[in-house]
This record gives sequence, C-alpha cells and structure tokens, in this order.
Amino acid sequence: METVSKAKSHGGVQGVYRHDSAATGTAMTFAVFVPPQAEAGPVPVVWYLSGLTCTHANVMEKGEYRAAAAEHGVIIVCPDTSPRGEGVPDETDNWQFGSGAGFYLDATEAPYAANYRMSSYILDELTGLIAAEFPADMTRQGIFGHSMGGHGALTMALKNPGRFRSCSAFAPIVEPSTADWSRPALEKYLGADPASWRAYDAVALMADGRRFPEFLVDQGTADPFLTTGLRPELLEAACARAGIPLTLNMREGYDHSYYFISTFMADHLAWHARRLSA
Amino acid sequence: METVSKAKSHGGVQGVYRHDSAATGTAMTFAVFVPPQAEAGPVPVVWYLSGLTCTHANVMEKGEYRAAAAEHGVIIVCPDTSPRGEGVPDETDNWQFGSGAGFYLDATEAPYAANYRMSSYILDELTGLIAAEFPADMTRQGIFGHSMGGHGALTMALKNPGRFRSCSAFAPIVEPSTADWSRPALEKYLGADPASWRAYDAVALMADGRRFPEFLVDQGTADPFLTTGLRPELLEAACARAGIPLTLNMREGYDHSYYFISTFMADHLAWHARRLSA
Repeated sequence: METVSKAKSHGGVQGVYRHDSAATGTAMTFAVFVPPQAEAGPVPVVWYLSGLTCTHANVMEKGEYRAAAAEHGVIIVCPDTSPRGEGVPDETDNWQFGSGAGFYLDATEAPYAANYRMSSYILDELTGLIAAEFPADMTRQGIFGHSMGGHGALTMALKNPGRFRSCSAFAPIVEPSTADWSRPALEKYLGADPASWRAYDAVALMADGRRFPEFLVDQGTADPFLTTGLRPELLEAACARAGIPLTLNMREGYDHSYYFISTFMADHLAWHARRLSA
Repeated sequence: METVSKAKSHGGVQGVYRHDSAATGTAMTFAVFVPPQAEAGPVPVVWYLSGLTCTHANVMEKGEYRAAAAEHGVIIVCPDTSPRGEGVPDETDNWQFGSGAGFYLDATEAPYAANYRMSSYILDELTGLIAAEFPADMTRQGIFGHSMGGHGALTMALKNPGRFRSCSAFAPIVEPSTADWSRPALEKYLGADPASWRAYDAVALMADGRRFPEFLVDQGTADPFLTTGLRPELLEAACARAGIPLTLNMREGYDHSYYFISTFMADHLAWHARRLSA
C-alpha cells in the first residue's frame, strides 16, 4: 500500500492510498479518514460507497464527513466506484457503465469478469487491508452510500448482516434490476438472465429472505432521478413486506448533489455512531 | 446577472452567478450562499476571498462553510480571484501572477490595468450587485479569506473599517511587498516603486496608520509556505505596534489546504457572527 497524500483535518488524518488489487487486476485508489480517537485504540469503521461517475475523491472533498467522524470517533473508508485504466474494458461515452459505474458487483460476463469485481474487492480485499493497516475495530462496521453507492450499501448490508451493524443511504437505487439506468449494466456485467441480478438488488434480496435490523434513507424531493432511477417507494414497500424498520426522510427541495449529501451527512454519521457504540 | 446554478443545501441556497463586470471588462463568476434566515429579512454578509490558483468554486466545494453559515444566519459571498478569459493578459506558466492571482488590487501598469481591478470589482461593483440582488444587510459585513485571500481580507478591512465589522484569515500573506512569491506580482501590477505597494500590504498599512478593531488568524504549523510567503510573526509584530488585538492560533500539524481551512471554518464564522449580530 502506497500513501498518495495525507493531511491533518478536524483533528484526524485524511489520507489517500493506492494498492495493487488482486480482485480487480488493477491499481486501486481509496481514501481513509482516521479520527483523533484512534490514537487511543481501534475505532469503528463506516464505509462510504459513492455514486455513478465518482472516484474516492468526490465525497472526500465535498461530503463534509470529517467534522462528524471526528466528533463520533469513526474511521471513514471511501473506495473507488470501479476498476480503471489501460486494459480495463469500458464504454467511455456511457456514464452508467464501465469506469465509474462498477455497481458494487462481481461481473460474470466477458470481457468484464476479469476486472469488474467490486463486491469481492470491497468485502474481501480492501476490508483485509483496512484491518491490517489502520486502527480499525472490524467488529464494529457500518456502511452507507449515495445513489449507486446507496445500492451498494443496502445490498452489502443485506448479504452481510453479521458484519455490518448499521446501514444508511442517500438517494439510493433500490431496485436496479428494473431501473432504466441500471438494468443495462446488470445485463452486461451479469448476463441476460434476470435471476442472476437478484443478488445485487436490495428489493429482490428482501423478497428472497435477506434481512437487516433497520435502514435510514434520506431522499431529496427535487432529485431529478427520483421517479426514474431511485423510486424510494419501492424500498418502503419492500421493507414493509420484510418487516424491516425504515426511516425514510423525504427532504423538500433537495437535489441529487453533494449539496444534499453534505446537508444530512452529520445526521447519518450520528445515526451510525449510536449503533456502532452500543 | 445570470444564474449558473442553484442548489438547496443546509436549509439555504448555494448559488453560482455570472455577470459582465465593468471593473474588469470581463464576465465574472461568483458564488453566494443564502441561509434560511434570509426568508425573514436581510441578514449579514461575510465575504470569503480565496487564495492563489482558486476560482469561486474551491471554497464552495471544499470549505464546509454552509453548516455554520446556516446556523448563524449569514450570507457567504465567494468572488473569483482574478479576471479571466480571452484578451486578458496572463502568464500561463506562473501560478503567482495573472489568472488566479489578482491579489485583490487595482493594477496601474500596462497591460494589466485594463482588467486586473479586483479591488474596485469587489468593493464597488460586486458589493453593489450583492446589495441589489440578495437579501443582504449591508450595514453588517465581515470579510475573511485564505492565503492571498487572507491578504485581501486584511487589507480591505484596514482600508474600510467603517464598512467591515469583522475580519479574519486562514494562513494569510501578511506582508506581500517582501514575500518572494508576491513581490514580483506587485511590481508587475503596480510598477517598480515600492511606495505604490503599501496600499496592498497589511503590515505597511498598519505602519501607515490604518487600524481595525481586531483580527483572528489561524495558521498551520505544517504549512509549507509558513516561513517564506506567510510569516505570521510579521503580522503579530505589526498588530502589537499598532495596538490592534490579534488572536493568532498556531495549529499544530495543519498544512495550507482546504483540509486545514474546513477544520477551523466553523470557529471563524462563529467569531464573525458574534461581531455582526452585536
């Protein structure tokens, strides 16, 4: 693991790191904020998964998470959203597929299966690296994210309820199998059989019996993707059917941007911290 | 004035605007955050002047000012740092001069005098526009900034103590006339006579009798420009001679970046708000 940059911020350290990933077959860059409390011993870890087109850097620069993370004493890990670089198959004119659009899954179809393995990358490889290299208490992990990253957080939590104690999302894609902007990606990464998509679809996972203690979701009412890609009512209905408590905050006038995310960042981190310190 | 973008954030509205400036002879872009309190009537205005290489956007994206501005009910105005565009003389390989390096002065030397008039632009033209277009109480204005923008804030406050009630800075250039990285710019903008530089040099302004009620300055000890471009001890000595109270916080381990600025942003805005609400 190579340190790309390190800066003191809000009493802790915001770092950017790079390593060669066996899962993706590429170099991968990620950001980690370590709060000041970590000087006294391991602290909980909250994973933040970013949305389409983002790298590790967008939320690091615009997400305003450091003040709250330093207050509550949690590490924030921000992975990239896909493998990148020479030799990685991509559709450079399609922002909903390829670079910046890994959808937090393990692709099974050629030519994507060799590199697009973001699920294994995050849950196995990067998790191991965080445990080894940072003062992290891996028995206390939470996960959240935005849009495509909200999809990643919900699905990873539903499939790993023993690992993650808390899960929340900003404007998540809740049913990617049926959303126009994600269905084509699932088909290319996973093949034409919709059954193979269910493992990466929060609503389908709940229908198939997966459970998680509770979710927190914030969604802007002025989000241009509200009724097409996002559709929080589908999550609401699925949680009701599954008996999973959902706090869904519809935020009047907020859009899909980091101006929205940063507004409710402190609320989400406080919510995670309460569940991770219990 | 044209609206470039608007987004709800922290209960208020973060906007970006563009207008044709008579002062600079160019189109100028600036950012304004209006807090929710402005719905009930005019609120104080705090000007944030950015550092070398920045536009209006850097602090808007990375400065983390909206939470505190919304808490205290102040408008934040973020101008650009220079005129830009076709026909504006520039040195494209010099980050300390030309585009992104207006130094908040009115140039007197050809070919710069036609466009590089950031002092008049901010103090006259943009001030008039803010008063006309936003719910701003112009009797309650504060000013702060970073690095070159800290220089701008200190010098504008010292020359306009009746207009600004509060002034603070992050890692300001306090004596640009003698700093290697700013002296060449002053010479090109203002001519070879050092006497002409004194109106844009905080330490010289104090020596020449200018006063302000008090200053707040935060400075990182790991700032790579600490002993060359910045030298807060010169401000400390000048304030002592002038009898101006200075709160100078040397912040252990912090650098010159927005990771530093954002850490102490809430402190500075609370400090301004106390003086602007009095």
